[in-house]
Amino acid sequence: MAANNEVGTIYPVQKIGAIAQKYNIPFLCDASQAVGKTPLNFQDWGITYLAISGHKLYAPKGIGALVVRKSKHLQPIIYGGGHQQGLRSGTLNVPGIVGLGEACKLRQLEMETDETAIATLRDQLQNLLQAAISDLVVNGDLNNRLSGNLHISIPDIPNSAIIARIRNQLAISTGAACSSGVVAPSHVLQAMNISENIIEGALRIGIGKFTTKAEIEKTSSLIISAVNEIHQLL
Amino acid sequence: MAANNEVGTIYPVQKIGAIAQKYNIPFLCDASQAVGKTPLNFQDWGITYLAISGHKLYAPKGIGALVVRKSKHLQPIIYGGGHQQGLRSGTLNVPGIVGLGEACKLRQLEMETDETAIATLRDQLQNLLQAAISDLVVNGDLNNRLSGNLHISIPDIPNSAIIARIRNQLAISTGAACSSGVVAPSHVLQAMNISENIIEGALRIGIGKFTTKAEIEKTSSLIISAVNEIHQLL
Repeated sequence: MAANNEVGTIYPVQKIGAIAQKYNIPFLCDASQAVGKTPLNFQDWGITYLAISGHKLYAPKGIGALVVRKSKHLQPIIYGGGHQQGLRSGTLNVPGIVGLGEACKLRQLEMETDETAIATLRDQLQNLLQAAISDLVVNGDLNNRLSGNLHISIPDIPNSAIIARIRNQLAISTGAACSSGVVAPSHVLQAMNISENIIEGALRIGIGKFTTKAEIEKTSSLIISAVNEIHQLL
Repeated sequence: MAANNEVGTIYPVQKIGAIAQKYNIPFLCDASQAVGKTPLNFQDWGITYLAISGHKLYAPKGIGALVVRKSKHLQPIIYGGGHQQGLRSGTLNVPGIVGLGEACKLRQLEMETDETAIATLRDQLQNLLQAAISDLVVNGDLNNRLSGNLHISIPDIPNSAIIARIRNQLAISTGAACSSGVVAPSHVLQAMNISENIIEGALRIGIGKFTTKAEIEKTSSLIISAVNEIHQLL
């Protein structure tokens, strides 16, 4: 994984790739969260297979790619007309493919400027929340994370209580989107040895290139109001 | 298969479904060629699984559906986030899905009128070709075929010789699109016991709702000129 899909930590892909290359180990890197958000070099970083996902980088939903250095070890799981050199049969999603290509091109041009602005908004939100919620915990590696990721916990306040109060006005999640509706605690936070009262309060906030300062301020006041309301009930 | 993807023959799906239902046999029907072109009733025809393909009915490329009566026998081949009740993980192709739904709705409204007009154009093309090419063979079941399908052979004239002469002006194929570039003779025509000199001349022409009468006339004259040119060389 090039960057974690919950807490946004950026992993040392280049170092991992160098080790893999040294020992001739095929290296599959899931860069869904990272591509277009943080520098990544398929050519030079010893990555054998790179997985990317369209909607994470402003391309349409439902398109992704596996970038392959050499395909000799790849086996198809979808058979049929023999498309894509037999590796994945089926009529191609042409609008999605064009959208993904265009999005990648735009990310390369805009990434640096966009991500700087996104990090500024993320830091503003973090500061606003920290100023109002004294025991706020920010999860993950603070020096090495995706600009658009803010992963917080408010100890002893279940995330479900906060989400129930703001869900009509804010799209916010407790963890990976894949796990929506799943009540089990995040395996990522458990692996980080975070205590249970903090895991139960975990909220993942995503900030993107179309997020505005006004939305950051509204988000902050929604969360703060919800927390204050819950505190009064406890 | 509800309709053949080469010669356009419409199969008796309702009768097959009735037999399957009587003996409690799961019935998977590939209706990619048929949906939106000829009447089909998933509910009443004893079909357990119905496969449809978007771009065959004017939806975007790269979207399809498996309509499932009951999913208890289905096993996933793609694992991950557990989307679609665990049957096919992965972020959904939302624009494709919306496009497929809209296209299905439109086909239901427009199918009858469109297919009547398409059959008229197809018959015009067939008549023009038959009038000029005395030994023209029309393959498939002439009474029971898709309106938009015209599958012809000119005996002893290889289809590649005709295609080479018209490919810059007309999109035309020798058989299934999946087999583009494959030189092997069509398994469909072989199974129909068609003689080799007719199989080698097979050309599949697709006519759709956006085909015009002018295009039909141009198609006919392109093919006729190519045939005459080849005859003079032989």
